[in-house]
Amino acid sequence: MASTFGEIFRIATWGESHGGGVGVVIDGCPARLPLSEADIQPDLDRRRPGQSDIVTPRKEEDTCRILSGVFQGQTLGTPISILVPNTDARPEAYSEMETHFRPSHADFTYQAKYGIRNWQGGGRASARETIGRVAAGAVAKKILHTLYPGLEILAYVTAIHDIEAQIDGASVTFADIEANAVRCPDANAAAAMIALIKQVRSEGDSVGGLIECLARGVPPGLGEPVFDKLEADLAGAMLSLPATKGFEIGSGFAGVKLKGSDHNDAFRMEDGRVRTATNLSGGIQGGISNGEPIVFRVAFKPTATIAKSQQTVTIAGANADLAARGRHDPCVLPRAVPMVEAMAALVLCDHALRQRAQDCLPR
Amino acid sequence: MASTFGEIFRIATWGESHGGGVGVVIDGCPARLPLSEADIQPDLDRRRPGQSDIVTPRKEEDTCRILSGVFQGQTLGTPISILVPNTDARPEAYSEMETHFRPSHADFTYQAKYGIRNWQGGGRASARETIGRVAAGAVAKKILHTLYPGLEILAYVTAIHDIEAQIDGASVTFADIEANAVRCPDANAAAAMIALIKQVRSEGDSVGGLIECLARGVPPGLGEPVFDKLEADLAGAMLSLPATKGFEIGSGFAGVKLKGSDHNDAFRMEDGRVRTATNLSGGIQGGISNGEPIVFRVAFKPTATIAKSQQTVTIAGANADLAARGRHDPCVLPRAVPMVEAMAALVLCDHALRQRAQDCLPR
Amino acid sequence: MASTFGEIFRIATWGESHGGGVGVVIDGCPARLPLSEADIQPDLDRRRPGQSDIVTPRKEEDTCRILSGVFQGQTLGTPISILVPNTDARPEAYSEMETHFRPSHADFTYQAKYGIRNWQGGGRASARETIGRVAAGAVAKKILHTLYPGLEILAYVTAIHDIEAQIDGASVTFADIEANAVRCPDANAAAAMIALIKQVRSEGDSVGGLIECLARGVPPGLGEPVFDKLEADLAGAMLSLPATKGFEIGSGFAGVKLKGSDHNDAFRMEDGRVRTATNLSGGIQGGISNGEPIVFRVAFKPTATIAKSQQTVTIAGANADLAARGRHDPCVLPRAVPMVEAMAALVLCDHALRQRAQDCLPR
Amino acid sequence: MASTFGEIFRIATWGESHGGGVGVVIDGCPARLPLSEADIQPDLDRRRPGQSDIVTPRKEEDTCRILSGVFQGQTLGTPISILVPNTDARPEAYSEMETHFRPSHADFTYQAKYGIRNWQGGGRASARETIGRVAAGAVAKKILHTLYPGLEILAYVTAIHDIEAQIDGASVTFADIEANAVRCPDANAAAAMIALIKQVRSEGDSVGGLIECLARGVPPGLGEPVFDKLEADLAGAMLSLPATKGFEIGSGFAGVKLKGSDHNDAFRMEDGRVRTATNLSGGIQGGISNGEPIVFRVAFKPTATIAKSQQTVTIAGANADLAARGRHDPCVLPRAVPMVEAMAALVLCDHALRQRAQDCLPR
Repeated sequence: MASTFGEIFRIATWGESHGGGVGVVIDGCPARLPLSEADIQPDLDRRRPGQSDIVTPRKEEDTCRILSGVFQGQTLGTPISILVPNTDARPEAYSEMETHFRPSHADFTYQAKYGIRNWQGGGRASARETIGRVAAGAVAKKILHTLYPGLEILAYVTAIHDIEAQIDGASVTFADIEANAVRCPDANAAAAMIALIKQVRSEGDSVGGLIECLARGVPPGLGEPVFDKLEADLAGAMLSLPATKGFEIGSGFAGVKLKGSDHNDAFRMEDGRVRTATNLSGGIQGGISNGEPIVFRVAFKPTATIAKSQQTVTIAGANADLAARGRHDPCVLPRAVPMVEAMAALVLCDHALRQRAQDCLPR
Repeated sequence: MASTFGEIFRIATWGESHGGGVGVVIDGCPARLPLSEADIQPDLDRRRPGQSDIVTPRKEEDTCRILSGVFQGQTLGTPISILVPNTDARPEAYSEMETHFRPSHADFTYQAKYGIRNWQGGGRASARETIGRVAAGAVAKKILHTLYPGLEILAYVTAIHDIEAQIDGASVTFADIEANAVRCPDANAAAAMIALIKQVRSEGDSVGGLIECLARGVPPGLGEPVFDKLEADLAGAMLSLPATKGFEIGSGFAGVKLKGSDHNDAFRMEDGRVRTATNLSGGIQGGISNGEPIVFRVAFKPTATIAKSQQTVTIAGANADLAARGRHDPCVLPRAVPMVEAMAALVLCDHALRQRAQDCLPR
Repeated sequence: MASTFGEIFRIATWGESHGGGVGVVIDGCPARLPLSEADIQPDLDRRRPGQSDIVTPRKEEDTCRILSGVFQGQTLGTPISILVPNTDARPEAYSEMETHFRPSHADFTYQAKYGIRNWQGGGRASARETIGRVAAGAVAKKILHTLYPGLEILAYVTAIHDIEAQIDGASVTFADIEANAVRCPDANAAAAMIALIKQVRSEGDSVGGLIECLARGVPPGLGEPVFDKLEADLAGAMLSLPATKGFEIGSGFAGVKLKGSDHNDAFRMEDGRVRTATNLSGGIQGGISNGEPIVFRVAFKPTATIAKSQQTVTIAGANADLAARGRHDPCVLPRAVPMVEAMAALVLCDHALRQRAQDCLPR
Repeated sequence: MASTFGEIFRIATWGESHGGGVGVVIDGCPARLPLSEADIQPDLDRRRPGQSDIVTPRKEEDTCRILSGVFQGQTLGTPISILVPNTDARPEAYSEMETHFRPSHADFTYQAKYGIRNWQGGGRASARETIGRVAAGAVAKKILHTLYPGLEILAYVTAIHDIEAQIDGASVTFADIEANAVRCPDANAAAAMIALIKQVRSEGDSVGGLIECLARGVPPGLGEPVFDKLEADLAGAMLSLPATKGFEIGSGFAGVKLKGSDHNDAFRMEDGRVRTATNLSGGIQGGISNGEPIVFRVAFKPTATIAKSQQTVTIAGANADLAARGRHDPCVLPRAVPMVEAMAALVLCDHALRQRAQDCLPR
């Protein structure tokens, strides 16, 4: 059940970086949604290796195929199985990993937990695992757009290492984000970020950064207190992504330094609708969306796999050194943007369906 | 299912601030655990109102009673029902809340979601709801101590508003934390925090802060990739607590500014055991505990309910002003410390039992 | 999680026959349902001991109290906690049970599984456990009646031991069922059943029987293939009741002896609606309700606890004899009728809410 | 979540009879189980069409491929994805089904529920869906054999239409069952059954029957009262199989006619172990296995799809006639035997892992 996510719109992902492929089964997709591979492939393309000169050059086309659950262009209400075969595997590039644990990677903990691990690449801990999430997220987005035509989920990079972008969330567009390889809508910052990423790669090192995610047009009422509060499910979803170290919503950690009288979002009526004058709440109050944009940020650590030599231990219990071979991302953030969007979409879609069930009696 | 938490060690909490009481049903507690109310009451006492002069003076004894699941001092393996009756309710103190939504509280969103709300106090959104969590957390702690005798979960305040404590996690003890009313093991900072909390209360205002949580003695191998990674479940658990705005583990948001070569935790052998030279990972790698102390921090916003007058709207859709009456916490953090511990214990206990099931074949 | 039932309308029952009480927490009840104890007590009264001269004479009032989730007469959408305190406990009546396992009861298996058991009465294996189910079932019925005004769930006894009633399901009414103590709408058979039950009680023995359940007015479309088919969830629900040994739907076991051409229910249009000429399917096809009455039967064994002396073993592993003391039901069926109804209502209500979520896209 | 089964050993099946294939994802398989396709294919071969002259002659090889979760011959503890591509699809054989609902099949109810259906063959309601179950069941069997070396699950046909076999459960072997095409260990009855099946096929008709399942060597202690009693989960599992109409355990429906003094299974000590003199309980008491053989029976209706002309309605709401074309099973039971075994294995394996988690404190 560890690879199962969601209560009603429930996905089960599977697959290692090396093996027959990766994929996802979506159980609980409503019937009659128009759907084809063309709805899914664009997000997979935003996630895939080799898409630009600042990500890993591994050649993986990541072409998806829908194996079930769709008939004559519409979902059947039955499970949707999506498969992406593995290609371009070079397990020989990973031979040291059979014996050496990569620092701050999952090698040691998988070995400790399972007593076995697929050491050819990252195995299940590889970012390749997220293909199933991104594919399912594309389906979730389409459901959300059908239920709430104005809903839009946008994620973008706001910081790489010590370079911070200046971004006005209110005006960000998808085109702004996709305008550069690092997916930062501040063009000047983006150029600096790209240069930095290339530099650290040349040094055999890596960098991390911040991704902000914005969900506009979410109706009031999504979120299920007390344990499945919307921000709780978003936090859990984001921290399940590889390389994440933190999550904050609205004012976040900075909100700690405000007093209540400054932090509270005053309510006011606007066009007959309850709005807030500010949005330090980040669009969620008491665990339930309030109709304002949902805004949260996710911290990503620098990629663990680096070319520089590092101290480690072997599976036999000896101290040793290790320098990664293989073709790694010097910075995961450009490719993590669609992952963050996908997880946000999965959470919102599941909560939209849950609210349909809950809110069934006459008002 | 929104008030159900955990996969194997599963709790269902119930209760509003005003009504017959609050409580929890624990479904999945292993049999033969010695248990009585005396194991639970101390954590409830650390959570209850009126415990010091910096928290709400409401008089709630919060005395728990175990109604089922225990026989002759031991758990039966059947559901454990724990009840805390409500007392000292003064619903008349909340009469404006019938019509006025408190800013940044859950009044508006509950009304929007459910079309009804218990406006006498916070209802289900009251921190009183956490009594069930703390009671269940005490049971989870006892299981964890039985399975792993050295395991210890400690939470403590590290910042209130702009006052930051200096704390060496390695040496913090439970006695240090409980030595003052704000539960900050840095005595000097604690004194300043207490003075600040009293001052903002006199101003009709409120403050937030940070709580750090440390879990020592957790064995390697807990956590279930890919969605139930240990940090994902901890993040979700913490963001389900009232007033939380952020979660970070290990290096957290600050880790963004390190390069991979500085951020990675080198492995080294120590007394025949795999250890890490640093702990920027925060005790979890690839979603699985690595045997180092688990360290995370939670950001709490300033209390939403304040005595100062604020702009808001009424349920009838009119702009209005509201100044809270009633007896509120000027700062939730002292009472939130046992809540953070409880949620951490619930997550770790559930994962400990899950690992028992997973790791059943011969090694 | 073993005492948790349902996916969206989810209940958690708790309590042993001896201890502080029994109860249930309903998590996932839609908001704004008018609800009070008066909606629940009648079904509890149909279940309670002492209601007639053919059931156990134990004096248990089984008065319920709603502790949470209801405000000003309506559900809040938050968990509903319902408590029934235990009374009239005479644990001394059960002293042999500390050492002697009652044949065909749960004493030995609980001891084997949990290494401990509450031997004062049946503990968790007592039929007293079903109070929480019946209480939650009453809430489920009320939701179903609100969503589908014509829906009606009727259970009734069709056989006791070798006495079989003649019943025309199409015309059975609630009044017919409640017209006699054994809850059999065939008055002649009922009289014979009552006489038989009194006789076997006088012999220190017990009898079993059959309960049929009819759900009229269920709309087409409820049921979730492939594992949560409506009949699968009904079967699991019924076999979770104490003393049940079998479940059949529609033609059931007798259908084995028909050929396909006789067994298939021909479709025909009637008043613009798809109907079936016969109902050997029992109202469910492919796991989904088809709009015809749902009809199923449940086999109950004779009560295990009897006054006659029986061979058994002790907890110390010695052969021994045991004759039950205490006040037991010579036949569980009269009191099992509301239990069957309750479980049917819980299944149908959960599926009604699930279908709301699934069927959310435009047709 | 409707296609997800199990709590800890959890499977998600997917696939329609016509489309890219069918398969299963197993989430929660313990690590280090030796596993390859060779462990799975034999049970798929017992399930597949064309295996004998009394089943459908459709040519489907049903060759499985493990895509993930296994490395160097052992399970990784990660999800195991198993794929069986679809072949030999002749959707043109089903063209009437686009417009005509087959009586007692799932065509009408799927259309009513989902507003769409894959009418090329049975779609998701096809018995082809059970491939994923049988594949996962083979993995479950292997885990059970590893945990409890003596455990054996045997299913076999005990009746076809009005032909009833004479079988002594105590002596049945796998070889006896597989000795004939109908999988009935009574050779004389089997010959008559085979003749009858051929005859009804020649008449364009179909027959049903009974399958008994025996699980030997199950240790005491499996089963989770009160809702996940072992017989409840078995009943739900069996009634989720296509064409099932009833389930009974131990004495079953016949037990209704016994008195308690005859029905109770006396305990006696045997070789230091608690045994029962009879086994009317069917190996389960109070929802928990007692160490005796688990014995249950499942009723299967005659195949709904028959060549004889039948009355039905069209999707446009007109009365019409329909005679099935295509190649159908005149009797599903020979191929249902491995399905029953698989579902029994899935239930027992899940409960074995659940008991590992529950029973973790010192005895």
